[in-house]
Amino acid sequence: MQAFEILESNVRSYSRSFPAILSRARGSIMLTEDGRKLIDFLSGAGALNYGHNNHRIKEAITEYLASDAVVHGLDMATPAKLEFMQTFSSVILRERDMQYRFQFTGPTGANAVEAALKLSRKVTGRQNIISFTHGYHGMSLGAIAASGNRFYRTASGVSLSGATFMPFDGYLEQVVDTADYLRTVLMDEGSGIDRPAAILVETVQGEGGINVASKEWLQSIQATAKDVGALFIVDDIQMGCGRTGEFFSFEFAALSPDIVVLSKSLSGYGLPLSMLLIKEGLDAWRPGEHTGTFRGNNLALVSATAAINLYWRSRTFSQGVQSIGELMRRRLEAIASEYENSFAVRGRGMVLGFDCRTTEVAEATTRKAFEKGLIVERCGPVDQVVKFLPALTIDVQTLNQGLEIFEEALAETVR
Amino acid sequence: MQAFEILESNVRSYSRSFPAILSRARGSIMLTEDGRKLIDFLSGAGALNYGHNNHRIKEAITEYLASDAVVHGLDMATPAKLEFMQTFSSVILRERDMQYRFQFTGPTGANAVEAALKLSRKVTGRQNIISFTHGYHGMSLGAIAASGNRFYRTASGVSLSGATFMPFDGYLEQVVDTADYLRTVLMDEGSGIDRPAAILVETVQGEGGINVASKEWLQSIQATAKDVGALFIVDDIQMGCGRTGEFFSFEFAALSPDIVVLSKSLSGYGLPLSMLLIKEGLDAWRPGEHTGTFRGNNLALVSATAAINLYWRSRTFSQGVQSIGELMRRRLEAIASEYENSFAVRGRGMVLGFDCRTTEVAEATTRKAFEKGLIVERCGPVDQVVKFLPALTIDVQTLNQGLEIFEEALAETVR
Amino acid sequence: MQAFEILESNVRSYSRSFPAILSRARGSIMLTEDGRKLIDFLSGAGALNYGHNNHRIKEAITEYLASDAVVHGLDMATPAKLEFMQTFSSVILRERDMQYRFQFTGPTGANAVEAALKLSRKVTGRQNIISFTHGYHGMSLGAIAASGNRFYRTASGVSLSGATFMPFDGYLEQVVDTADYLRTVLMDEGSGIDRPAAILVETVQGEGGINVASKEWLQSIQATAKDVGALFIVDDIQMGCGRTGEFFSFEFAALSPDIVVLSKSLSGYGLPLSMLLIKEGLDAWRPGEHTGTFRGNNLALVSATAAINLYWRSRTFSQGVQSIGELMRRRLEAIASEYENSFAVRGRGMVLGFDCRTTEVAEATTRKAFEKGLIVERCGPVDQVVKFLPALTIDVQTLNQGLEIFEEALAETVR
Amino acid sequence: MQAFEILESNVRSYSRSFPAILSRARGSIMLTEDGRKLIDFLSGAGALNYGHNNHRIKEAITEYLASDAVVHGLDMATPAKLEFMQTFSSVILRERDMQYRFQFTGPTGANAVEAALKLSRKVTGRQNIISFTHGYHGMSLGAIAASGNRFYRTASGVSLSGATFMPFDGYLEQVVDTADYLRTVLMDEGSGIDRPAAILVETVQGEGGINVASKEWLQSIQATAKDVGALFIVDDIQMGCGRTGEFFSFEFAALSPDIVVLSKSLSGYGLPLSMLLIKEGLDAWRPGEHTGTFRGNNLALVSATAAINLYWRSRTFSQGVQSIGELMRRRLEAIASEYENSFAVRGRGMVLGFDCRTTEVAEATTRKAFEKGLIVERCGPVDQVVKFLPALTIDVQTLNQGLEIFEEALAETVR
Repeated sequence: MQAFEILESNVRSYSRSFPAILSRARGSIMLTEDGRKLIDFLSGAGALNYGHNNHRIKEAITEYLASDAVVHGLDMATPAKLEFMQTFSSVILRERDMQYRFQFTGPTGANAVEAALKLSRKVTGRQNIISFTHGYHGMSLGAIAASGNRFYRTASGVSLSGATFMPFDGYLEQVVDTADYLRTVLMDEGSGIDRPAAILVETVQGEGGINVASKEWLQSIQATAKDVGALFIVDDIQMGCGRTGEFFSFEFAALSPDIVVLSKSLSGYGLPLSMLLIKEGLDAWRPGEHTGTFRGNNLALVSATAAINLYWRSRTFSQGVQSIGELMRRRLEAIASEYENSFAVRGRGMVLGFDCRTTEVAEATTRKAFEKGLIVERCGPVDQVVKFLPALTIDVQTLNQGLEIFEEALAETVR
Repeated sequence: MQAFEILESNVRSYSRSFPAILSRARGSIMLTEDGRKLIDFLSGAGALNYGHNNHRIKEAITEYLASDAVVHGLDMATPAKLEFMQTFSSVILRERDMQYRFQFTGPTGANAVEAALKLSRKVTGRQNIISFTHGYHGMSLGAIAASGNRFYRTASGVSLSGATFMPFDGYLEQVVDTADYLRTVLMDEGSGIDRPAAILVETVQGEGGINVASKEWLQSIQATAKDVGALFIVDDIQMGCGRTGEFFSFEFAALSPDIVVLSKSLSGYGLPLSMLLIKEGLDAWRPGEHTGTFRGNNLALVSATAAINLYWRSRTFSQGVQSIGELMRRRLEAIASEYENSFAVRGRGMVLGFDCRTTEVAEATTRKAFEKGLIVERCGPVDQVVKFLPALTIDVQTLNQGLEIFEEALAETVR
Repeated sequence: MQAFEILESNVRSYSRSFPAILSRARGSIMLTEDGRKLIDFLSGAGALNYGHNNHRIKEAITEYLASDAVVHGLDMATPAKLEFMQTFSSVILRERDMQYRFQFTGPTGANAVEAALKLSRKVTGRQNIISFTHGYHGMSLGAIAASGNRFYRTASGVSLSGATFMPFDGYLEQVVDTADYLRTVLMDEGSGIDRPAAILVETVQGEGGINVASKEWLQSIQATAKDVGALFIVDDIQMGCGRTGEFFSFEFAALSPDIVVLSKSLSGYGLPLSMLLIKEGLDAWRPGEHTGTFRGNNLALVSATAAINLYWRSRTFSQGVQSIGELMRRRLEAIASEYENSFAVRGRGMVLGFDCRTTEVAEATTRKAFEKGLIVERCGPVDQVVKFLPALTIDVQTLNQGLEIFEEALAETVR
Repeated sequence: MQAFEILESNVRSYSRSFPAILSRARGSIMLTEDGRKLIDFLSGAGALNYGHNNHRIKEAITEYLASDAVVHGLDMATPAKLEFMQTFSSVILRERDMQYRFQFTGPTGANAVEAALKLSRKVTGRQNIISFTHGYHGMSLGAIAASGNRFYRTASGVSLSGATFMPFDGYLEQVVDTADYLRTVLMDEGSGIDRPAAILVETVQGEGGINVASKEWLQSIQATAKDVGALFIVDDIQMGCGRTGEFFSFEFAALSPDIVVLSKSLSGYGLPLSMLLIKEGLDAWRPGEHTGTFRGNNLALVSATAAINLYWRSRTFSQGVQSIGELMRRRLEAIASEYENSFAVRGRGMVLGFDCRTTEVAEATTRKAFEKGLIVERCGPVDQVVKFLPALTIDVQTLNQGLEIFEEALAETVR
């Protein structure tokens, strides 16, 4: 580990939270160089919904590599891209009665968010973006301007502009419907809130602390966007690709976003890949207006196609995620209940947050958990929430082992 | 191709310039689905310096995949990352007497540029970035603000701020040393140019039209940065990794940038990978201040290590690039000379621009070239320059075939 | 009037609301060129608290002019400025146990607001300003960025940045204490609201629709400013100088602002004059950092001194304002009550708003009122509130005549 | 003076340069409280072109005050305003074959500049403003963003945006025609300089160091504005109203600006007054879009009318300014020549700069001059230029006395 301290920038983070050299991984298990076995409840921050080195997906990319098919081709037309678009269209979109065009942006979530904001501004001729308290959308200047975390915002070194923050669902307790408040300020000619190009929302805020928006709130936000002439963008980077139990996190609310942002688990194998789904009528781009060298990561398109074919052709996988999610939730709630409501459990599907209320408890718990063999991360404005993001493919036994470790670590911390 | 029109956003670009489905590729040759063989002088916009599907590099990633080593691990410590850093340090840095720390950012050039600007602003407490006419640094909001192209700037839909454009070397013909002009305005308390956090420069502007900065100019810019307390950043995304004949494009001028930005051909196989090299004393990041899901693209780190081991342990490769570059230049100058100075040839090493003076000539020439079997792209503010970026590993015969095609296409166009 | 249409820009406004050539004025009465007598309930938008051409003040400036004392002297030291500062200090400040330094800015409210924001940013090193829904602070770029009105904001032609709008007292009905909400988002590390340089507030929003902040709310806002290290600025441009019954509008809440902004009626004679009162410890200006040609409007300083001597040496004037204000309020409430709560009356002291709920009713009412001999203006985000700003020196008979006209005009409108 | 230190903010400036209490003034002479007589070569920073307390103008305002005509009437129609517009139209505009509409903005130059920029952005739908090195346009956020002085820019505490600085005439010595450079970057699709809403220029930069633009340069700039669809704005705040010998400073170059900004000496008596002259076709304001309390400073309109009637009905005054200017220039050049080109003299009409090259020499000279009875200020980026702005009405004897004092002060300093 010392070599990392000497060679790598101070900015490194996960190698500090999990101070071990990780050499191999499979499914929900990671192995350290010195042979320790770790259960992974972090899943590449949501980029590994189908587990590490999923062998059925690996087959597809290994074969692709072997064939000398095009790996890097900018955004040239390749059979791999065509197959991906056609598979995604028929298996995911058509099944859900959705019609969208694909835009492959640079392969990070931030790149895709930047493109979505740019398109919204272009389409509407407006500049303001409505985003929400505790929202997180990425690190580049356009994306960070729409992200709530002060630690990240300050690091940008400039005064961020172009986004207005409104209270997320539940931010004002249940006293005020914050969706109503948003509508009020946007309709009010004197509120100081400029007419927005877009409303940008996560249905469950991941980095922000596992905050869950209700169906009604999301529908209300979507209706407001429509009424004020703004695009409605769902950032499904972390919550899409099955994390909440359905492929898109917004299916439960029957939303119809103007733009959907996907990344993280899209490639299915942890390879960088991002895309926008854009409603055809809003595809106002001129050729080449948003570009980038790694838009056509064909290897990732191949693994993405494989993942869809493997997991999304039937409802079985989705149902499994929901039932395992339920199981996790019950277990976490049981743990919380042992502490007389000191803690709270939040989430949907297989993303759950255990709110420790204080940074200290959360920090000590995850540190102890790591020592006991569990990789689990924290989130929330002061990292006070333990975030459970196991692979969607995890087996119940491993899940329970992980939860057990967490329970012990918490108990030791609180004691 | 029709399927692409229906499914993919209007924004797609290269699939328009090169209307064919590209199925396989090897070295400098791409094959279309219907069996056409194309010579590639674009090389993934500089991301494929070692050619398509370089088999010696492929071995390394195939083996890595097979072993279930960690593919996606956020920025956790992995043997792959360690090996890359150690190899790069010893083979590239130590040989050149350079000392830098590694920051792996999101895997696109824009992500890395954003991180570099952020760090500069953080270190200096200033906000302004000096960039140059015709400079290009990426598509996200921070990067595009420092990029000169009006077509891209306008598409951002907001008023871009935070960067000041100064004339690049040669912009004011040879009448004025534009480096002197920069120094003057930065020293002048009344110039309106705010003290900069950084001066951000490409030694050869790729997208901007293959504009070559001289050694003296670059040294002068670097000295000015130092004198005004700004960081000196070389964006070596396209021009680094051997493109100009040396690993870094600035070696010929003996520069010592505070930050070097690398991406594109860094992974050696067209896989997304970006990084910053940061002088140790400037590594002012707090842990986790700049983050991202795909920072640790281990597969790309493995191919990157392989590429360095293969090509940079001796001087042979570098010398080869220089001599082939010389060959190309002479041939292109010969072609230009047939037209009595209507055209100009510019470049260094194996990046050359053939300035057709008008969009029309350049466009028709590259279109005809494609019909005859050559993939070659244009650059410059109005796409008036034909850009030659063959793989550094191209054989002389293929190179000559490609140049022949270009010569014919130009002749047909001008006729 | 036709000459005005030909010669003066379309931007002219009051000459449209009150289409007459106004030739003479005295106290609360204006005379048109063709001899009509108009009661003035607008008072130069609050710039004429002591009435038009107040003869006792006129004496002072006439004498000053006659003596060839310095009229324009930039910010050089003059006896007129010294006398003003000493008078203001002893009569206004010392009496209220306040300690402030004087900064004379350019003579408009906007100039003074700009200076206040600048100083706040300088002192704190932060950029964000908290302002409030329906707040109004002026037309220059820094001031308009902190003003809520969309009509004005849009006219600026740029994306305004640097201010965050929070709900004013009562904006979320009585359900939520909006001061608590402000505190919450400022304390929350993930709210997206950047730490502010200042909180900028009007105790009664004039242009915004005569919205009255409560004592508790204002105290809470002030405490929050202190707790987050922001300056607390009261914009008393329209509400100061006696308008609410006390010299400063915030005396009733026992506030101690870091900066107080005064203008409008400060000069007492309608002459342009603005100033900041700055707590000594915050006077971080370097000499000459904020400058301007008309900072030292000595004629206005002379009239300002006269006004203070005339009206503020005893409590009588203040008490009169309060009792006339009470009278107005009762009369307006009586009028409103005739319409079964269709309308609302709001205000403090001698600034009252009659909320007609719709633009149409308010517009027709003020138009008819003008025809009947009353100058009264509208305010609020869609100009739906009739704003009563009679001179503080108005006699009861004239006041009643004016109110009578309003009552009739409203009745005719509603009928 | 001590009272000023205690009571007035540190920001005070002229009272430091000229540490005396100035009690009376007439023409070019100011008297201190203790009876010293000072010759004034500062003239209220150009606001007193007709001298202090010009008695012929005083008559007009004294009479106006006596009559109880409207002093403050917002922008209501008054006979005073009408008379001013008609007089200005016939005496100034019609004589010069100019057609403009009047917009009375808040009464400071900065207010007027803000309005001009706003209108330009509104008309063009663009945001960028081209301004020039060493340009100065005011202190509010929009105006300071277009001003070059770093001391003032830094004090704003925010990152200023919305303006691009280009080299003024002569900035690149005579090697490069900076007007050509401007045209080049605006025409270049890759320069990074966004298409401008306006080009904002002073024909002679006052605060910037008395830098004189040539006729050809100004015409070229104007032509470029037209060709790129930008408004051409002349900021004639300090150089207008006769300062350069003609009423407008741009008459010598036969320019036809889209907007002219006037303030400072416009009122003729040092009273705050500003206005825009707008070409009729560009008067795109909607009623009330730009507003302000002190737009209708009727007293200042009265003095302004008087000044025009007194000085501009014949060519005599203008010719006098030119010949006195010539006299001053010759004398200053003679002084400079005594020092073998150590110093430079620049200017037009009765605005002249004596460039001392160093802050120290200029500072010491003006300080000594003040001790000897001359008020003269410095300008330029580091206050290295002594600025001669005597009243246009100064008599030759007083002028010579003043110049003599300067000569002695300089001699003592250099010695």
